[in-house]
Amino acid sequence: MNSDIRLIGYGQTRFGELWDMGIRDLMEEAADAAISSAPITALDIDMIIVSNMLAEITNGQAHLSAIASSLLPHHPPALRVESACGSGAFALHTACAMLESGRARNVLVIGAEKMTDVSNDIVSSALMGAADAEQERPAGLTFPGIFGMIAQRYMHEYGLSRAALSLVSAVHHRNACGNSFAQFRTEVTPDDVSGSAPVADPLRLLDCSPISDGAAACVLSTDKESPVRIAASQIASDSLSIVDRPVLTSFSATKDAAERSLAEAEVKLKDIRIVETHDCFSIAALINLEDLGFADPGGGIRFYRNAYEGQTAAHRSPGEGGALGVNMSGGLKGCGHPVGATGIKQIIDVAKRLRETGERYGLAHNFGGACATCGVHVLEHSPS
Amino acid sequence: MNSDIRLIGYGQTRFGELWDMGIRDLMEEAADAAISSAPITALDIDMIIVSNMLAEITNGQAHLSAIASSLLPHHPPALRVESACGSGAFALHTACAMLESGRARNVLVIGAEKMTDVSNDIVSSALMGAADAEQERPAGLTFPGIFGMIAQRYMHEYGLSRAALSLVSAVHHRNACGNSFAQFRTEVTPDDVSGSAPVADPLRLLDCSPISDGAAACVLSTDKESPVRIAASQIASDSLSIVDRPVLTSFSATKDAAERSLAEAEVKLKDIRIVETHDCFSIAALINLEDLGFADPGGGIRFYRNAYEGQTAAHRSPGEGGALGVNMSGGLKGCGHPVGATGIKQIIDVAKRLRETGERYGLAHNFGGACATCGVHVLEHSPS
Repeated sequence: MNSDIRLIGYGQTRFGELWDMGIRDLMEEAADAAISSAPITALDIDMIIVSNMLAEITNGQAHLSAIASSLLPHHPPALRVESACGSGAFALHTACAMLESGRARNVLVIGAEKMTDVSNDIVSSALMGAADAEQERPAGLTFPGIFGMIAQRYMHEYGLSRAALSLVSAVHHRNACGNSFAQFRTEVTPDDVSGSAPVADPLRLLDCSPISDGAAACVLSTDKESPVRIAASQIASDSLSIVDRPVLTSFSATKDAAERSLAEAEVKLKDIRIVETHDCFSIAALINLEDLGFADPGGGIRFYRNAYEGQTAAHRSPGEGGALGVNMSGGLKGCGHPVGATGIKQIIDVAKRLRETGERYGLAHNFGGACATCGVHVLEHSPS
Repeated sequence: MNSDIRLIGYGQTRFGELWDMGIRDLMEEAADAAISSAPITALDIDMIIVSNMLAEITNGQAHLSAIASSLLPHHPPALRVESACGSGAFALHTACAMLESGRARNVLVIGAEKMTDVSNDIVSSALMGAADAEQERPAGLTFPGIFGMIAQRYMHEYGLSRAALSLVSAVHHRNACGNSFAQFRTEVTPDDVSGSAPVADPLRLLDCSPISDGAAACVLSTDKESPVRIAASQIASDSLSIVDRPVLTSFSATKDAAERSLAEAEVKLKDIRIVETHDCFSIAALINLEDLGFADPGGGIRFYRNAYEGQTAAHRSPGEGGALGVNMSGGLKGCGHPVGATGIKQIIDVAKRLRETGERYGLAHNFGGACATCGVHVLEHSPS
């Protein structure tokens, strides 16, 4: 990092079907929570970055930057960043650049999505905007279809069974039970997952993150102290359409952003102890752990086997460094996935877990589409 | 500016009803033109910022960052910035911060909008996303309605006649005749404007910028030389809804961004000789000239009277500094207004005009909604 950027405040709404809240209410609740947890007043915020994907369609509302600015008494400059479901990480990256450039000293980043005001047909079609409207949409693909094909190929290549894949959502649901902001605080068994309604073979309903409302916000600062700093912020891109990719079972944008993040943070992979990764579908969690370097290709399931067998989190094998907590918040599956909010919520969960455990390094991994765009942040915790 | 940021390349598509081009084609043509005009290759681009407002609705395509990245062989990191019709200025501001932060050395900024693939009803509704979906949309307002009310109030307050207001579009159309990229290269008389179809009283069809397709792109660099640099980049916000404003006939975000821009560029208003300003509706051009400081409240029309009376541009009065060229490109009315592209196209037109005339300073003024968000850039030209 070119500056010392601290995470000085954060907060979020509950994620779920929040029938009594609009997009503005969601943004306001998260922003208030973030600012009131920080050692500043609202008037110290000198820029706002908004992360949102769908509000034009789901809320008839573009220009969320202006709404965000109106939430604070002094109307600070604001802009919106969109990179599909990875918007949160890209908003954080933009906030870091604003701080590093010296154009701001306290940036409020708000991620928000209000998805339940429209029918499932409309929101599914809107989400398909994250894929290629010329190459993929005309083929009839939706995101469950894209990740279904990815899962098919992965199972073929690595011999992963349907029963094993079901461990992923079972672990995420169990983890979510301890998170009061999570949409699903209910345990499901692997058999529940395998036996849930087919969506896009081999994926079942319980392999898929849900449609959610929610907002999360944080304050990044070069001005105030905090035990948690942003040690790295990196973004990367890949081809939008999976048609143009040499392989389906690995996402090059993750590898690229992760590699640059570790270099920027000057940290070794084995020192990362907390990870929040983008499990929009169960299969993605396995691929992500492999692309991030925590497992060999095909080996991601080992984390979930270990976690399911009596432990509360996915763990590294002995000899590979200390325990690794993966999606201890419940991930996208357990917490819900209000798409623009997810990347910000991941940062909050990594920071909370670092402070709870006293661990030093955590990583948040957020992507858009089938990882056509990817953002990775490394957080460093230095207890005072 | 915290860094020396040069405008090293630029290019655009024609603006208009481009039936044979999709959003990707538009982005590609503008990007190619910008890169090929710069002293770099595509591989030197290390980040892309995309400006777009409507593609989710008009093209079924979010995630334009990934499409932009796919246009270049090495898939550089990319993100999209949205601030309604002011998206272009906000994308440029983000690009400046990326360069100042040291995270990039050559940033490609692409503004694009493809508006004609859907019906006027859909595009009008989508554009209304730039206003307040809770306070303004339920009242039945559209943007012509909002600016119609603003024009009513302005005419009441300053005694502006309908015939005088018609000079604005007449001048912009005449200026556009010299611009091969403009949508309307046809002269209209003030009587044509006054006699055109009523849209939202007192505004007539020829007071309104059109629905357009188009893209514009530029390359900003801290790495390469160019006679044109970005001397200031400032953004500002106001309340989204006009309901929350103390006055309708002046836009505080313009004043705020303009004042900070002049301070950042260390330039006096009288030294600005070229202006591109956001005339989404004729009345806006008058308000903008006043808010930018080039005229007293109610006095903006003088520029257009002078311009219409035999000169090719709006001019300062004697004693107020040298001649001032306003919207010499034709502005939004003459050139067309593909909303995400407009802010980038303004920068290009200011740069071109500075190079043609040998003048030193120019200013681009781009806003979103009824100036709920506003971006101002000052360009400095130093002929070698």
